[in-house]
Amino acid sequence: MSKLKLKIVIVGAGNVAWHLAKELQKNDQEILQIYNRSVGSAISLARRLKCDFTSSVDDLNKEADLYILAVTDSAISEVSKSLMLNNKLIVHTSGAIEKDCIEHERSGVFYPLQTFSKEKSLNFKNIPFCIEATKSEDYNTLMRLATLLSPIVYNINSHQRKVLHVAAVFACNFSNFMYMMADDILQKEQIPLEILQPLIKETASKIKKLKPKEVQTGPAVRRDKSTIDAHLNYLEKGAHFDIYKILTETILDKNKDEL
Amino acid sequence: MSKLKLKIVIVGAGNVAWHLAKELQKNDQEILQIYNRSVGSAISLARRLKCDFTSSVDDLNKEADLYILAVTDSAISEVSKSLMLNNKLIVHTSGAIEKDCIEHERSGVFYPLQTFSKEKSLNFKNIPFCIEATKSEDYNTLMRLATLLSPIVYNINSHQRKVLHVAAVFACNFSNFMYMMADDILQKEQIPLEILQPLIKETASKIKKLKPKEVQTGPAVRRDKSTIDAHLNYLEKGAHFDIYKILTETILDKNKDEL
Repeated sequence: MSKLKLKIVIVGAGNVAWHLAKELQKNDQEILQIYNRSVGSAISLARRLKCDFTSSVDDLNKEADLYILAVTDSAISEVSKSLMLNNKLIVHTSGAIEKDCIEHERSGVFYPLQTFSKEKSLNFKNIPFCIEATKSEDYNTLMRLATLLSPIVYNINSHQRKVLHVAAVFACNFSNFMYMMADDILQKEQIPLEILQPLIKETASKIKKLKPKEVQTGPAVRRDKSTIDAHLNYLEKGAHFDIYKILTETILDKNKDEL
Repeated sequence: MSKLKLKIVIVGAGNVAWHLAKELQKNDQEILQIYNRSVGSAISLARRLKCDFTSSVDDLNKEADLYILAVTDSAISEVSKSLMLNNKLIVHTSGAIEKDCIEHERSGVFYPLQTFSKEKSLNFKNIPFCIEATKSEDYNTLMRLATLLSPIVYNINSHQRKVLHVAAVFACNFSNFMYMMADDILQKEQIPLEILQPLIKETASKIKKLKPKEVQTGPAVRRDKSTIDAHLNYLEKGAHFDIYKILTETILDKNKDEL
């Protein structure tokens, strides 16, 4: 099989566009153009990639093999319609949106299951890609493209991807929010979050081999009421108090089911 | 300074006792005895260490330099009184309990800030120790002992330790509970949690250099109402629904404050 060399237009210039475009280029794919409605971020990304850019759909490059929509979920449908493309493969990168939201004969999904921040570099070899396409030929192309970037590629349909995305909100967004609440609590006492880093690392690494259920520790799972009360007493009221309370009660309840 | 070689009695045979006793022995400290009220787990641990054990306080070895109480928080006070020791250093290993809960002239705290499960081995070099003692001589001994096990040792008073413990519940116990909820969600669709491992790892590693606040991603921080509604709609009701809702609302609220 000949080496894959696609001509690609990236639509969007946010966190995902930023990392993905760079990685595709690094793997010998040709980024023809960045198209983004706000010209400022299009320019930044295009400069980084040394490629063309536009903020007007009239100037969209129509010569690409693949159009990757790395835009806000709510914009996918509208943007895909506005592109006015015929017989081109158009994919989005979202965990939450159905493939068919792109109303086009050659639609697909190219979803990197990872958390992206511009400031933080990423090793794509550790990013699972979830692939879906209307046409099997396009599926094969996306599969080849994903495999160039990462050894972890899954065939995931729109329903499974939606469920995966809900689970990812818990595992990633909400656990980061737990770190943030911990940081808030420590800041009040001038203790740096650094002291919790080994604990955070170990908590995330424990579940590689064991189920989260098997390694749940802490006052709630021990049913240690006096520590729970002391903690709630310290937190007093507000968001930290409410969240401590509901999570503790849920852990207590879940354990009760099994007694 | 001569090499530290303490004679130690471990009181308790749970997760912390299990890991700590083994590590102390590995570092040339002499574990004289395991004392635990339930004889079964005392035997298991004593066999592992090839040391003496007892389940009766009358047979407690009185020759040790240091008594480490690795027992449930609520038992610390009572157990420490029952030991009937004179002029011996007695410490507990709890994040939540004040030093003075051990009513003894030579009390202290030897708190390893980590999550312990018997099934999971640990590298002690990555465990921060939080040390406190009534007498400065004892503080120095505990400091030397902790430094034998780990390069990360903090002088933390009882109030700071309590705050640290509340923060650790968020950063560790609650984030593990988030992994567990993600696992529940995926199980219903026969998707293995494995697919989220890279995301979980990246989420935990991101905050080594950046603040959790700076790297918060997901539908809530993006104020992506349609995805939030779709997720809540999928979760329908129950604990997952309630927790998704309160965490999302708190993230939305926190962001509003800054607009």
